Amino acid sequence: MEQDFINWLKETLPISDVCRGGIGDDAAVVEWTGRDDIVVTSDLLAEGTHFVLADHSAEMVGRKALAVNLSDLAAMGARSVAVTVSLLLPRADAAGLAKRIIKGMLPLCEHFRTAIVGGDTNTWDHGLVINVTAFGQLEGKSPLTRSGARPGDALLVTGELGGSLTGNHFVFVPRIDEAIQLRQFDVHACMDISDGLSLDLSRMVRASGCGAELDLDAVPISPAAHGISRQEGAQRTPLEHALSDGEDFELLLAVPKDVAERLIDEQPLTVTLTRIGQFIEGEGLWCHDESNGRRRLAPEGYEH
Amino acid sequence: MEQDFINWLKETLPISDVCRGGIGDDAAVVEWTGRDDIVVTSDLLAEGTHFVLADHSAEMVGRKALAVNLSDLAAMGARSVAVTVSLLLPRADAAGLAKRIIKGMLPLCEHFRTAIVGGDTNTWDHGLVINVTAFGQLEGKSPLTRSGARPGDALLVTGELGGSLTGNHFVFVPRIDEAIQLRQFDVHACMDISDGLSLDLSRMVRASGCGAELDLDAVPISPAAHGISRQEGAQRTPLEHALSDGEDFELLLAVPKDVAERLIDEQPLTVTLTRIGQFIEGEGLWCHDESNGRRRLAPEGYEH
Repeated sequence: MEQDFINWLKETLPISDVCRGGIGDDAAVVEWTGRDDIVVTSDLLAEGTHFVLADHSAEMVGRKALAVNLSDLAAMGARSVAVTVSLLLPRADAAGLAKRIIKGMLPLCEHFRTAIVGGDTNTWDHGLVINVTAFGQLEGKSPLTRSGARPGDALLVTGELGGSLTGNHFVFVPRIDEAIQLRQFDVHACMDISDGLSLDLSRMVRASGCGAELDLDAVPISPAAHGISRQEGAQRTPLEHALSDGEDFELLLAVPKDVAERLIDEQPLTVTLTRIGQFIEGEGLWCHDESNGRRRLAPEGYEH
Repeated sequence: MEQDFINWLKETLPISDVCRGGIGDDAAVVEWTGRDDIVVTSDLLAEGTHFVLADHSAEMVGRKALAVNLSDLAAMGARSVAVTVSLLLPRADAAGLAKRIIKGMLPLCEHFRTAIVGGDTNTWDHGLVINVTAFGQLEGKSPLTRSGARPGDALLVTGELGGSLTGNHFVFVPRIDEAIQLRQFDVHACMDISDGLSLDLSRMVRASGCGAELDLDAVPISPAAHGISRQEGAQRTPLEHALSDGEDFELLLAVPKDVAERLIDEQPLTVTLTRIGQFIEGEGLWCHDESNGRRRLAPEGYEH
């Protein structure tokens, strides 16, 4: 099926101004202007582990496989340029499935001017596996990393957290535009929340060699997290969902206090920025709220 | 296991002079010097389809997953710089398996000064899946493609063909050094033989808009192809193996006649270059040999 699929891709993919010579050769040649370094990320999604094809369309799964990679580029402050897509397809209707996956990616590709430049297709007798590798450009800026937070920095987050698995994880828009806009400001550290706020924050403080204290009353909780907690037999509070649910794909930021004040005041993004705590001397996570005071916080979330 | 695996990688991988900031952030930042375009390729290997872990060590499988990608870079005349590695691991002993796969890649990484800069790990209840994305640099030269062959060009091949599945497909050295050396000469088209000489040649002539005629008596046949044909119950001749076995990973080249004469005469590579035919007007494949004269040749090989 590979040759037919490549032919279909040639007809379907928009003509890219970065993919020299088009697709179908042994490798893709991607135009790289300027002297920027390349930001590269790779994420793999597998049926049964990350999605269930009986519950979600192939288009949605394809969109998500692309979006999680673009979210990693956003976390680094990079603009996405191109991706490769490797598909391992169940033999039944492999070609149809492959096309639906790519179709699901096209709107995001267009939105972020990102070209699908290559990849691989194979068939087998098990579930669908999609690997996307994305690469992005820094446009002359330094990358944002998770290791630059300093004690005294404010901890900010974009959007609202929790309950993503009820739907948002398939439709979220990677925060690339927001990350690039934020680079006008003095951002010390940045990462995307993919495995849960508290778990990802614990990684940021470890990488940065400091600690953090969350203001639990300030954490922006999504309507989805409230919704789950209202359901019969619900085990966790909306806040617990916001602290530990995976796949929010919002940005977690460390910025100097004065910059934080300006950002919270001006709200320069189309999505709300909220201050949810600060970085502190020492290590690990602390939290406080009005009713229970200050205490240790155990990181919780999705462990790969 | 992912955090432990990343820690192990940090201790195990040699320090790379292209991977700024090391591994473990949301994405890798790869130093890109000069103004070269990026050559990108992605290949996925799946247990049961491309390898059987009961028959081959995880180290060999890891090496192969890397080598097939480097072979694609060779086909484009690019020097490899960095790779990302995504692993989907069976749950039992996932961490041990992941480490053995990476260990199997390290000698080739060192040989070709190629850094493992990032990737992804996941576990599930099915077979092992490895996706490698490799990117390379053209060092100021144009990429070699499969579409530049012209009628009158000689058809050259490196090394010997056939029978790779008896062992060579796990130990072959990607022809990166050879491809780069050949760029001193006027090479019109190049690709690697991954799916079988006749099938891959049919792709080259289609991409180039011409035909080709193979001199069957000249095709260099590997000892492995002879060995298979000597086995009891063998169905095919050594030549048939050389024409249609996949995974030779040798280079197929279109070069002007006078350049071909010089290359065959001088043999500038450490591997033998053989002239096995020429490109012709028209389309499709022809062949000839002393005993049967000239006739059509049906492309045969491994279809994905």
